[in-house]
Amino acid sequence: MLKHREETYAAISPPIPDPPKDLPSNVTELPAQLLSKDVVSITESLVEDLLSKLCSGKLTSTAVTTAFLQRAGLAGKLTNCITELLPQRALDRAKSVDTYLTEHGKPIGPLHGLPISVKEHVGMKDLDLNAGFVSWVGRVSPDDALILKLLWRAGAVFYARTTEPQTLMHLETDNNIYGVTTNPYNTALTPGGSSGGEGALLGTRGSCLGIGTDIGGSIRGPAANNGVFGFRPTTYRLPVAGWSATMLGAEHIVAVIGPLSTSLEGCKIFMRTLLEQQPWLIDPSLVQLPWKDSSHKTLLRTDSTGRRKLRVGVLADDGIVRPHPPILRGISTLTSKLRNHPDIETVEFPPYKHDEAWSILSALYFADGAAEEKAAVEASGEPWRPLSKYIIDEYTDTKVRSINEIWQLTEQREAYRAAYTRHWNSIGTSVPGPEAETRGYHEELRALEEKESMVDVILTPTGPGCAPPHDCARYWGYTAQWNLLDYPCMVFPTGLQQEPGVDDVETGYVPRNEHDRYNDELYEPEVYRDAPISLQLVGRRYEDEKVMEALEFLLEAAGMSTVAPRPSNL
Amino acid sequence: MLKHREETYAAISPPIPDPPKDLPSNVTELPAQLLSKDVVSITESLVEDLLSKLCSGKLTSTAVTTAFLQRAGLAGKLTNCITELLPQRALDRAKSVDTYLTEHGKPIGPLHGLPISVKEHVGMKDLDLNAGFVSWVGRVSPDDALILKLLWRAGAVFYARTTEPQTLMHLETDNNIYGVTTNPYNTALTPGGSSGGEGALLGTRGSCLGIGTDIGGSIRGPAANNGVFGFRPTTYRLPVAGWSATMLGAEHIVAVIGPLSTSLEGCKIFMRTLLEQQPWLIDPSLVQLPWKDSSHKTLLRTDSTGRRKLRVGVLADDGIVRPHPPILRGISTLTSKLRNHPDIETVEFPPYKHDEAWSILSALYFADGAAEEKAAVEASGEPWRPLSKYIIDEYTDTKVRSINEIWQLTEQREAYRAAYTRHWNSIGTSVPGPEAETRGYHEELRALEEKESMVDVILTPTGPGCAPPHDCARYWGYTAQWNLLDYPCMVFPTGLQQEPGVDDVETGYVPRNEHDRYNDELYEPEVYRDAPISLQLVGRRYEDEKVMEALEFLLEAAGMSTVAPRPSNL
Repeated sequence: MLKHREETYAAISPPIPDPPKDLPSNVTELPAQLLSKDVVSITESLVEDLLSKLCSGKLTSTAVTTAFLQRAGLAGKLTNCITELLPQRALDRAKSVDTYLTEHGKPIGPLHGLPISVKEHVGMKDLDLNAGFVSWVGRVSPDDALILKLLWRAGAVFYARTTEPQTLMHLETDNNIYGVTTNPYNTALTPGGSSGGEGALLGTRGSCLGIGTDIGGSIRGPAANNGVFGFRPTTYRLPVAGWSATMLGAEHIVAVIGPLSTSLEGCKIFMRTLLEQQPWLIDPSLVQLPWKDSSHKTLLRTDSTGRRKLRVGVLADDGIVRPHPPILRGISTLTSKLRNHPDIETVEFPPYKHDEAWSILSALYFADGAAEEKAAVEASGEPWRPLSKYIIDEYTDTKVRSINEIWQLTEQREAYRAAYTRHWNSIGTSVPGPEAETRGYHEELRALEEKESMVDVILTPTGPGCAPPHDCARYWGYTAQWNLLDYPCMVFPTGLQQEPGVDDVETGYVPRNEHDRYNDELYEPEVYRDAPISLQLVGRRYEDEKVMEALEFLLEAAGMSTVAPRPSNL
Repeated sequence: MLKHREETYAAISPPIPDPPKDLPSNVTELPAQLLSKDVVSITESLVEDLLSKLCSGKLTSTAVTTAFLQRAGLAGKLTNCITELLPQRALDRAKSVDTYLTEHGKPIGPLHGLPISVKEHVGMKDLDLNAGFVSWVGRVSPDDALILKLLWRAGAVFYARTTEPQTLMHLETDNNIYGVTTNPYNTALTPGGSSGGEGALLGTRGSCLGIGTDIGGSIRGPAANNGVFGFRPTTYRLPVAGWSATMLGAEHIVAVIGPLSTSLEGCKIFMRTLLEQQPWLIDPSLVQLPWKDSSHKTLLRTDSTGRRKLRVGVLADDGIVRPHPPILRGISTLTSKLRNHPDIETVEFPPYKHDEAWSILSALYFADGAAEEKAAVEASGEPWRPLSKYIIDEYTDTKVRSINEIWQLTEQREAYRAAYTRHWNSIGTSVPGPEAETRGYHEELRALEEKESMVDVILTPTGPGCAPPHDCARYWGYTAQWNLLDYPCMVFPTGLQQEPGVDDVETGYVPRNEHDRYNDELYEPEVYRDAPISLQLVGRRYEDEKVMEALEFLLEAAGMSTVAPRPSNL
């Protein structure tokens, strides 16, 4: 596979520049030094700006695709984030899209000619589909995944496939086929996982829009660690048919597919373009819920004077593992900017038994005792990667479950979801929380009367720190919590980065438990230098649109950017 | 329990009349002879008419509730459809609703004072919750089921609880607590099940709106067999929290809750009233999909001239068990009336592997080898009812499944759903069906281009015959098919009834298989005398509103009624 990858690198024209032998720790500024000004300009453009130029013919898809192929190749050499480039099919596609515009005088679709990168385990016709297992190398996808067909129909160009970890169940990215993917901001750190190839590729601007997947944080960790936007939709909104993974029939905890992008708008365009096609007409697993692309006015609450108000719950610490100083700085920087805004209310959102959430997840993740993962790893005799062993043997309560146990655990999951809903509804209202003595008949129905007073979205970390050193991403709580609850989540860069001297260790902290101790001991300011500080905005189930609208609104209100910081100053 | 039931009967005032000793086979006309004119007039009113009078104060809830208590008691004596009446709490509630109207000059909610009957296994605070198992008698519900709280909030009065079969997994209604419930149109026949108590109660007009549940036909069989409307919504639209049953955590095939009513509008009011309350704010299992209460114009297709067209697929025979003559007469009567309507197109909708659908269902229904049902039955030593034994031992492929088997079966279910979608999309279009050789790239996406040409709804039987004799409801295919696909279904009476002489046996028919033979041999015209002929309209997943709108439209187009025929001529 490595040979094949080199061949696809070699087929890129103009050739991918060779990085210098002695790489700096932070490689994000190298591409601007090594690539032509035009290539840098194109590849550091945002989805929305590229589309505007592509649709009007100011840029050809061939030019844009050529630029991204070159920069993705360079990103691959810098961070090992690529499994293969697709110059032939991408340029063929770009050419046909360009021809369409010339012949018809209009774009082929809303994504006219836009290059999109794709995580490897999302199937592409006639290409390898190994999902990070050595024994699966050589499995070939008979067809494109449905999401790719829909994006293609909208005009997209697929040009790069990206790395993922063994088992897909790491919050990092390493496997025995391609090795370890690194973080472009600091190559001693992980880009996160499992969509870490996407994360690192976007971090180096080898892509402006990529496809990741997420069952415990796999879109969000990589987006956060690489300082870009990433969106985990509610389940069954986007089609997953045609991907490859273990445990495909499992419904207890459901994996989703979603975008990473250098702009908030890029994620929104991705969602809108897919849902406007009414994919539920061909994929019956999808909820028939059109994308509500409305203004803030309809999605956000209005008070009695008709004034728009956004109520943001702030959950800075989940009560189990306290985030590192830069994360707490990110939260406090943002909330202090929001606090006095007339259209925004911030309110403390205490965690509700996030440890119980993990114990349910932990029993449900590998409900067959990880039989499928073990079979896939042992079939080739490849070694277990450290985080594969950790997740199965240490971190989760992995056992072969009977069907009755699964039903009981599913009931526990539903009870926890219901309790969390009551918790949410109780904050700032008179609705009784899950632990409250109820004082009368039908009291939880007060939520229906007081919905205008309830929290709209939760602002919370994406992890217990910035991108950790390799093999150290052991705590899933800040992302997996929302998988259990099936809440939509948007990860966004704050524009801040970790800085030793600013984000120093707090002395004398007494850890709460072993996870907290591990995380606390992990933090050494110098190790995390330059790591982006990202946060997460979380909404109620199915309120995907509201999360995006709310994020746009609050970033603007805070005077912060809705686009990721550009690595170069072009 | 029988003693308790008698006590609740005895508490009704004015007293429930005693039926004559020698009951006719068809008891539907008896209540009008035994009850006062006022009681008959109220109880034979439709939901929409009662609400109009209740909300304006023309009728008090006390009067309406008193009338329904009396008629429900009589229905219970005639068909054994009641587990208990609730005179005290119903009349207390009615009184408080009446007081509200007097004091506030406006109704308390959209269901102001309306009596609603409820299947027993839907929990009511402090009342028994036995779900048809002897060993569960004495289990008391700690709270009202969420759906009851929401209906209560809208103004409803709960006054009667209805019977269900042992295991809840019969298409009939008999258990060892209350015995056998009979069909009011012909007491030698079954009212269907598992919501057969509701069916029989509505058939005798002891209720105009009731709550049933459905995992394989349990709302629809009873509605069909008793000549009323019944609606099986898509899963996760209405809240089921607070019911009692075995296999509560199972997600492979999901049971739903829904209405039975003497009018189409009654079912619509039920759905609208619940969904307008935004129940997803308190129940996170629900899809956040508001009720689209629009006119036909937005739900039905328009052609290029802007003309409204409804395309009805007709699936008269599932290819496995041929329906009895009255059912085929029902289908042909209706389709012949529709065929020349300018706004309607009918097209043959061939079945697609309904036997495969059953084999998947059959493996998934009792995935723990029916361990929970066996435990519940064996705990008391009660005898197995014939259809309990049949469903577990004969009709389904009941085994203890491993979690990996469940995942495989779930994948099969998803593949079947996807294939059925392609089948649906292919009818009358150039979209390749599931078996077709595809001739090019991304061909199934044509469905997105040709959606205006696709079938809107499927017209099909509700069962392989009218209400069968007791212990003979053995074929689930015509209803369970749509549970597997999770399609919304509305059952409606055609206004026709089985008539010996009209619906005679066709001679010389060669059965296709054992199920077909059993059904064929079951048909003797005299046995089914007076049984209502009902049909089913089926829509795509989540198109619940469209099914109701389409049914209204096509019944009106055919000159047929959107209300159930009145048993008396008052």
